[in-house]
Order: sequence, then structure tokens, then C-alpha cells
Amino acid sequence: MTLTAQMRDDIVRSVEDGFAAQVEFTGALVGFRSNRGEEHTIQDFIYRALGDRGYARDRFAMDPEAIARHPGGAPWSDTHSEAPIVVGIHRPRAEAGRSLILQSHLDVVPAGPRAMWASDPYVARIEGDWMFGRGAADMKAGAAANIFALDALRRIGLEPASTVYIQSVVEEESTGNGALMTHLRGYQADAVLIPEPEDEMLVRANTGVLWFRVEVSGLPVHVREMGSGTNAIDAAYRLVGALRELEARWNAKKADHPHFADLDHPINLNVGRIEGGDWASSVPCWCAIDCRIAIYPGTDAGAAASEIRDCLAQFSRADPYLSNNPPVVTFDGFHAEGYVLEAGSEAEAVLGRAHEEAIGTPLQSFTTPGYLDTRVYALYDRIPALCYGPISRNIHGFDECVSLSSVQRITTAMALFIAHWCGVKPIDKA
Amino acid sequence: MTLTAQMRDDIVRSVEDGFAAQVEFTGALVGFRSNRGEEHTIQDFIYRALGDRGYARDRFAMDPEAIARHPGGAPWSDTHSEAPIVVGIHRPRAEAGRSLILQSHLDVVPAGPRAMWASDPYVARIEGDWMFGRGAADMKAGAAANIFALDALRRIGLEPASTVYIQSVVEEESTGNGALMTHLRGYQADAVLIPEPEDEMLVRANTGVLWFRVEVSGLPVHVREMGSGTNAIDAAYRLVGALRELEARWNAKKADHPHFADLDHPINLNVGRIEGGDWASSVPCWCAIDCRIAIYPGTDAGAAASEIRDCLAQFSRADPYLSNNPPVVTFDGFHAEGYVLEAGSEAEAVLGRAHEEAIGTPLQSFTTPGYLDTRVYALYDRIPALCYGPISRNIHGFDECVSLSSVQRITTAMALFIAHWCGVKPIDKA
Repeated sequence: MTLTAQMRDDIVRSVEDGFAAQVEFTGALVGFRSNRGEEHTIQDFIYRALGDRGYARDRFAMDPEAIARHPGGAPWSDTHSEAPIVVGIHRPRAEAGRSLILQSHLDVVPAGPRAMWASDPYVARIEGDWMFGRGAADMKAGAAANIFALDALRRIGLEPASTVYIQSVVEEESTGNGALMTHLRGYQADAVLIPEPEDEMLVRANTGVLWFRVEVSGLPVHVREMGSGTNAIDAAYRLVGALRELEARWNAKKADHPHFADLDHPINLNVGRIEGGDWASSVPCWCAIDCRIAIYPGTDAGAAASEIRDCLAQFSRADPYLSNNPPVVTFDGFHAEGYVLEAGSEAEAVLGRAHEEAIGTPLQSFTTPGYLDTRVYALYDRIPALCYGPISRNIHGFDECVSLSSVQRITTAMALFIAHWCGVKPIDKA
Repeated sequence: MTLTAQMRDDIVRSVEDGFAAQVEFTGALVGFRSNRGEEHTIQDFIYRALGDRGYARDRFAMDPEAIARHPGGAPWSDTHSEAPIVVGIHRPRAEAGRSLILQSHLDVVPAGPRAMWASDPYVARIEGDWMFGRGAADMKAGAAANIFALDALRRIGLEPASTVYIQSVVEEESTGNGALMTHLRGYQADAVLIPEPEDEMLVRANTGVLWFRVEVSGLPVHVREMGSGTNAIDAAYRLVGALRELEARWNAKKADHPHFADLDHPINLNVGRIEGGDWASSVPCWCAIDCRIAIYPGTDAGAAASEIRDCLAQFSRADPYLSNNPPVVTFDGFHAEGYVLEAGSEAEAVLGRAHEEAIGTPLQSFTTPGYLDTRVYALYDRIPALCYGPISRNIHGFDECVSLSSVQRITTAMALFIAHWCGVKPIDKA
């Protein structure tokens, strides 16, 4: 059935009617401290929420061997999550429209020092239009929106006319292996929508991301004999200098990548963690840094990793200390390539229409220089992969928050998108 | 009584006769994992060893308030040791010679990664002439030598003709408050000998040492917005750059300090520990570095600390990030001034004679750019403070070891020094 103006209005109102419950649900998600490896209970919570709504459910572990074999798989490490992937499935009695994946991740990045937060990062706090909490924006609000957009249709007696998969994954903040696992499990659809906090815009292109750890170690001595010893912390920082030059060379190539040419600094190298040494008066004998760097879409992750290894090896050969104590480089997380959402897809046109209906402005797109799970669907399923979601502040930072009015607008646009893309029909009676 | 040639020979032989037991005792000391704050049991072991030999004993806690009031006291921190100071006292019935303090410290610096050691750092291992183990050289061999040099006299029926204090302290590797506490307790003598591993030479001058911690914190963001965030690790390393300039300025003044003019690099700044950030893909919001720097003798520790604070404040004012997030600087350990052993003292002449008798070569002196407890006795007791001890390798490093033949030579020289300095007499009968 086609969507009448009345039905559109009903959908808008239904999202509004359900919004108090949606906010409460989002707050409950924030209450789970779902750091990497600690997402078991939040995934069980989602599993129950999908069951309460009558969806068929699939819950499965990641398959390290299958992931290792896939070019988009990231290395498995000791800190890799063992939480399950959860999928809720809506299957209409007869398929009429186009199928859809609604995806979200429920892992969050560490909150950092508690003192830097105005309130407990794992207790949702609402102040004015903003819900604060680690993961409130990235992306528990989106996870709730996936479920509540469908709830809004159901509340007015409608359901999608085609199959919809609601995927809840983990490892989005470290490897992207969760999203890859849904692909390896065999899930496929005609499009995917991932409501990451994208300021009510559509992601046109994004970078790939590599994680790597650089470990330096060497002979420590009493600091009185410092000249004869070697300072592993200083040596590690010399290697950071070499990596900064690599970063500059990669940024200098931005003109070759149309979606990135206008960004100031599309390739960011981040030294996100450092640890080294044991004692102020001993020359430090070890230092380890955890790094993250972006790569342009179309760049092979393995080739980029080789370039990083070569850069560090070449610098080390010319360094008196490092030539005798070469650094150990380990790729221990994201090994992911970027993607471009080619303009002109029907899915994008439909989302654009839903966005205008819900928000009243044309849908804008932009390029984001960070990792997105959307890459799995774009690169390996080769389907239109739409990353589009609410307005946020300080994701990965302190006092992360999401705009609740924006979440409501986005949920409305999502419900309308589902209705347009999948078609709607009266709910099948059991 | 004067020391006859026969008595000298007897002392040499007696040290030799006791040396197997001395090596065993030294190995037992290495077996205690006496890291900072963990020296309780080793101090009790020494207390019992002194009791077994019939010394009067004094065991006392450090007095944080008295230490805080003293200009040579270092700040008390959470990691400060609460182990006791132990003193064994030999008091002859009548005082005939010059009194003496034999001092040693039993705290050790951390061993660092176990894998970097050929064998367990807390199990003494002898290979050829070398005893390996954390603290074997710095300075458990010296602690044993203090006791066994006196044992050697006793074995041939002699004892010092004057008072000898055997002081066993802690906190030498972090504050020097242990040695200061013996001064505050009221111990005084005509000279002090500390058998630190000084390669069979006498320390002519040494530096003071300051410890300080620099903490940087600021707003983290998702790495995709890195430009708008601030990287606390990078900021900390910019501050290290400013400190390296301070270090260079201080080294440039070495010509003003006669004992240091010939050293390549008397003032060493060591960034001994670093820690920062939580996640490879979050811009790090915090970083802390633990530093150690030397100061020339005659430099006021407080004035040097102010210069460090000023250097960091001045650099931060000109730095876009640090001017908004000024670093927090804490002086949390050594706050100690250096000393010079003025040539020409009677104590040095006597040690020179003993050294020649034991080892057969003239006693050489040298300058060492590190902290020594000797400073307490030189600066505050104003007595000849002799730092002189065995040949070692890799103190504060991996596979630290001490030459056992050197320990025997040094113990012989110490026994002869005691005999010359204090005088000897037949043991008092009870």
C-alpha cells in the first residue's frame, strides 16, 4: 500500500507518542557499562527487548577463524570481546517491498577519568534537550531508534512489507569484527541504515582505520650513566615523529580523493595511549604506544600497514638506539578500509524524502574521517549503506550527550524511510 | 693499640675466612624483594642479624613532621615507605679512637620486566666472579660488608676502640629521608662510610637530585575531530622539550662547578615513567610523566624546583593548549642537594691507607652525577662522608651484578679502615 498523507501524519504522531518510552529505553542502555568485552548483559537486554516485541531472534558468537580469513577482518587480541551478536528479524507473511538492515553497536569507548565528567558517565542524565552519558550518542540513542521506529509503525497497526533485520553488534569501537560477523553469518538485504550520531546528515564517504601498537625496549641503566643507556620513552617519541611525517605525506595526497580534498586534515594519526618505564631514577627500558591512523577509501589496509611498518623500520635503521633495538609493531585492532556511498542510489533518494518529510530541510551529506561499520555493507554486501543519525556532542569525550529533539526527528525520518523503502501493510494476524 | 703488620695480615685473612658466609648473607639479602615500601622483612632480618652479634639496637619509624621541617627532607607521598630504620651499636667500655657510622640502604629500585633478566632478579645467582640480582650491588653487598668487616675483627679477637653505628636505612632510591631520619634521631660520629658500588673509588662530589611529576589533562574528543581536541600525550612531550632546554642550560654551567667541569653531561634529566590515555581511537585527555633531574652541589633544592616550575609555566603560557590547561607540577620525591668531599681530611687519608694496604693501588676519587645518602652526613652532620664500594655492573638495570672478588677487597679495606680510624683493642669480656 502507498503511504498517504494521513499515514505520514500518523507515523509522525506515533513516534511522538512513543518517545517518552524511547528516552527511557535509551537511558536504560546508557546504564549498562558496555565497555569492550563487557557487552554481554546489554546484548541480553536487547535480545529480551526484541523477544518482547515478537521478533524472531538469532544470537551467535563471532567466529575468529572466519574473521581471520576475510580481508575486512581485524586481528583477534586478548582484549577482543566475546559478547554475542544479536539479530531480531521481522518477516512478513509475503515479501512485498525491499528488505532492510537496521544496525547499531552497543560497545562504548572508555569513559576516562570520572572527575572529568559532570556526572556518572554510566547513569543517563537529562538536562534540557540533552541526554548525557557514555554512549548516549555513540550509539545507544541509535540502537533505541532502530527498535522504536518499528514500534511506531506497529502502534498504528502497520508493519514493514519486507524483511527487516535489527542487528545489534559489538567491537565497532575497536575492530569492526561485529558487523563483519553479520555478513559472514549470511545476512543480506537491499539496504542498510546505521543511525550513528551524524548531526542529521548522511555520510557520503569515510576513511578506513588501522590500529597498531609500537613497543620499544632496550637496556636501562642508572640515570647517572644515562649516556651509555637508552631511554625507551624518548625512542618511542622519536618514532612518533616519524609517524607524523607519514601522516603529513598521506594528508598531502588528499587531492587525489575527491571526497576528502576539502577537509583540512583527513588523515589523523592519534597516539591514544602510552605507557613506559618503572621508576623516575631508572632510565626507562620499555615504552608502548597505541596508535590509530586513517586511510582513504580505496586504500588497501594491508598495503597501508606495510607502509607503516616500512616507515618505522626505515627510521629505526638510522637511529643509533633503535637500530640495535628495533621496535615491535603489532596491528591489533581495526584493519578496515573506507567506503564511498556513490550518489544516485534509490535508497539515498528515499532517505532524502523521509528526511524532508520529518525535518523539512534537504538531506545533506558529508565526509567523516573515522571508522564506520557501514563499510562492511558497502564493501562486502555491496548495498547502499546509509549512515545517518542524531545531533551529538563530545562523542569519545567527557559529558558525551545526544540531542533528544534530534533523536525524535531522526526516529521519525527512520520510520518514514522504513515505510517508503520496505512498504507497509496492516500487521499480520497470528 | 697500634696495628702491627701481623695484625694487618690477620685482618686480611679473617675477611677471607668469613667471606663464604658473607656471600651467603649477601645472597639472603638479595632474596628479599625489598622494593619501596616492601622493606619491612629485610629490616627485621638485619635487626636480628645485629642482635645475633650482640650489638645494642635501635629501631624506629620515620617522623614525617620532623622530615618536613628539615631543608633536606623530601615530600611525603602515598608511596613513601613505612619500613623502620635499624641501627646496631657497638660501644666499647672506654672510648679510645674516633667514632664511625657505617651506613647502607636496603631498598631497591624495581626490577622491570622479568623477561629482560637472565634469571629471577630476586634470587641471587653466582656466575664466575659475579653475583646477580636486583640490589646485589646497590647495595646489599655493601650492607653485608658493613657487618662482616666488623665480624672479621671480632674473629681475631678485636673490636673497635670507639663507638660504631651500623645504620640500615630505606628510601635511598626515592627521597633520602631514611638517612635524614638517622640525623634527626640524633646520631653523630666523627666520620661515615657508605659502601655504595663505586668501582673501588671514593666519591669526591655528587649532585643533588629532584623528583617531580608533571600532569597534563584536557578535553578529549573523537579522533575524527582531532583538530578541535587536544592531545595530552603530545602536550606532555612538548613540556619534555622545554625541560630538555633547561637541562642544556644547566649543563652549560658545568664550568662553574670544578668537580663537574670535566664530565660530558653532569646534569641528566630522566623521564623515567610515562602514562597517558585510555583508548587508541580517543584523543588522550591525560598524561603524567615522572622525572628526575640533577643539581650541582651548592644549588638550593628549593630554588632549583622554582626554576623547573617557572620553565614549565613559561612554556605553557605560549602554548595554545597548555595555556588553557596548565600542567600540574608536583615535587614528590628527592629534594636533595649535592655535596663535595673536601680533599685533605684525616678520614680520607686513613681510607687511602687502608685501600692501599688491601688493594695495593692508590685510592682514586671521582665525581658521580647521582644521589647519595652521604649528602646527609656531609651537609647536616658536617663530617667526612666517605662513599666507597665494590665494582658493579648494571645497577638500576637488568642483570645487575657485583664483583665478589671486589667485595672481598673492599671488605678488607673497610676492616682495615675501621681498625685505623677507630683503633682496635681486644674484645671486652662481659
